[in-house]
Amino acid sequence: MVLASRPRGAVLPENFRLETATVPALGEGQVLVRNHYLSLDPYMRGRMSEAKSYAAAQAIDETMIGGTAGEVVASQHPRFTPGDRVVGMLGWAEMGVADGNMLRKVDATSIPLSAYLGVLGMPGMTAWYGLNHIMQPAAGNTILVSAASGAVGSAVGQLAKLQGCRAIGIAGGPEKCAYVVDELGFDACIDYKGGRLAEDLAAAAPGGIDALFENVGGAGFDAALPLMNAFGRIALCGLIAGYNGDDMAVRNLRYMLTSRLSMRGFIVTEHMDLWPQGLRELGELVATGKLKYRETVAQGLAAAPDAFIGLLSGRNFGKQLVRLI
Amino acid sequence: MVLASRPRGAVLPENFRLETATVPALGEGQVLVRNHYLSLDPYMRGRMSEAKSYAAAQAIDETMIGGTAGEVVASQHPRFTPGDRVVGMLGWAEMGVADGNMLRKVDATSIPLSAYLGVLGMPGMTAWYGLNHIMQPAAGNTILVSAASGAVGSAVGQLAKLQGCRAIGIAGGPEKCAYVVDELGFDACIDYKGGRLAEDLAAAAPGGIDALFENVGGAGFDAALPLMNAFGRIALCGLIAGYNGDDMAVRNLRYMLTSRLSMRGFIVTEHMDLWPQGLRELGELVATGKLKYRETVAQGLAAAPDAFIGLLSGRNFGKQLVRLI
Repeated sequence: MVLASRPRGAVLPENFRLETATVPALGEGQVLVRNHYLSLDPYMRGRMSEAKSYAAAQAIDETMIGGTAGEVVASQHPRFTPGDRVVGMLGWAEMGVADGNMLRKVDATSIPLSAYLGVLGMPGMTAWYGLNHIMQPAAGNTILVSAASGAVGSAVGQLAKLQGCRAIGIAGGPEKCAYVVDELGFDACIDYKGGRLAEDLAAAAPGGIDALFENVGGAGFDAALPLMNAFGRIALCGLIAGYNGDDMAVRNLRYMLTSRLSMRGFIVTEHMDLWPQGLRELGELVATGKLKYRETVAQGLAAAPDAFIGLLSGRNFGKQLVRLI
Repeated sequence: MVLASRPRGAVLPENFRLETATVPALGEGQVLVRNHYLSLDPYMRGRMSEAKSYAAAQAIDETMIGGTAGEVVASQHPRFTPGDRVVGMLGWAEMGVADGNMLRKVDATSIPLSAYLGVLGMPGMTAWYGLNHIMQPAAGNTILVSAASGAVGSAVGQLAKLQGCRAIGIAGGPEKCAYVVDELGFDACIDYKGGRLAEDLAAAAPGGIDALFENVGGAGFDAALPLMNAFGRIALCGLIAGYNGDDMAVRNLRYMLTSRLSMRGFIVTEHMDLWPQGLRELGELVATGKLKYRETVAQGLAAAPDAFIGLLSGRNFGKQLVRLI
């Protein structure tokens, strides 16, 4: 699936085009992978635009970038043999050739392969890093996370609860909010579609908010700022609300000053040195059932554009994947 | 000078009232001070409102708070004798009684007394802390500071230059900009009244901005965000642009994420442990002529309200003081 054109505002199906290509011969050190799952993530929206960002823009007419999990079919790399389960960045494609050094071998016998694209992959590490290295909550702290039923947000809240925090989420609709509280164990969840965001948030955080994990931006972020306690920490992970160029003016920035808040934007792939530790901790929590996750799975590469468009508007419920087999 | 009423929008002269009171008898540990200078600072605007802030609101009908420098007239404290020069928080008043433990004795023989309210006081320490503890520039970095001709901003840029940085300022009008470049030694200064803020800023920072000291907020802050280099640091010290309740929407917050910026609001009086070190360093630089400062001095307590209103709109040029003798 290639990028056919850059979106002007909202992403449309015609921004993508499905193509068929011949599998090339493998060079030294290369591995041919049959992808089983493609991960769809909000960061991809940024790559589709030409605006200045932390990464180069996705090139037109080239395969959309993306994380994948699959099975080795052929290998010219000493560490891989056919049948190995691997995670990589092979893009929106059923098969792909990768430098073996860019693949991570995973154990899919006790944990489903798809989990390595979610709670045991980039989204899980994003939650782990933002919580432990930016928000740094103490036991008893109140933390807030937006997009709380999503792949990242759900992990942030559960990890915070395991550290003795009070966790509040923001999600879209009563069904997601019920899941966040009843299944994930958050203390409260605000439905941003309920029309009373600021009031509901204030009621859910009577002692204020000590640390915020921001995935969305916009109205929720602006409503959270006045509730932040002195010296509060904000991990800025995503701003989905503004990805289509919608106005996302922040009016409450003064609380950054009056409450002496700190905020840091981050990209978890710039902290690869911490991944072994993080993945070990996350893996143990998943294996012992202490860290739950949920997936929305679209079937087949042709369904990826619509699933991605749904992800950007919150139509998914938990980690959005595309099953490719 | 007491607070007569809280401003609705802009501060007006009628928000203040001059009163006469009898000097009380001194209790144990107290000191009577004849103030020579009153410091006028933007933070006072926040205290005049009732909005949530880091400090309690200034009470109606009570003496406006403020930093002062003066001379001991009488003392019931063992550390002070008449004639001592002292700095304290005696407010907008010609005389005052203070707990001796809240006064700092200063040497006004080699350095003018007024400097202890500016470059060798709270404004100087604000610059020193924000630069060294938040912006942490490396030699060769480009730093930007708003309100660059003011008491804080002028020190930020000069200290950065002494550390080998390229310093860019933002100030109001060609006269202030000329001072910032010609007298203070900044590499460039943008006149925010010139109508080309974003373009001028981009031209002055062809290699981007590594660290920002923000005193103002508003259009200048929004124009700086897209120019920030990856992992840039922002010391958030003041938001004068919004102090009267004017809309101060930030539209470029996404650069906090895409450029992985960090921002921290701070209040220098919460870092008193660092004052001895900072004041020692600043004192040496002032004594050796490496750190320059400029003052705008109003005469007499009755002139304080108008001088304060001028400070909030940038009418002052350098540190705003009121001479009380």
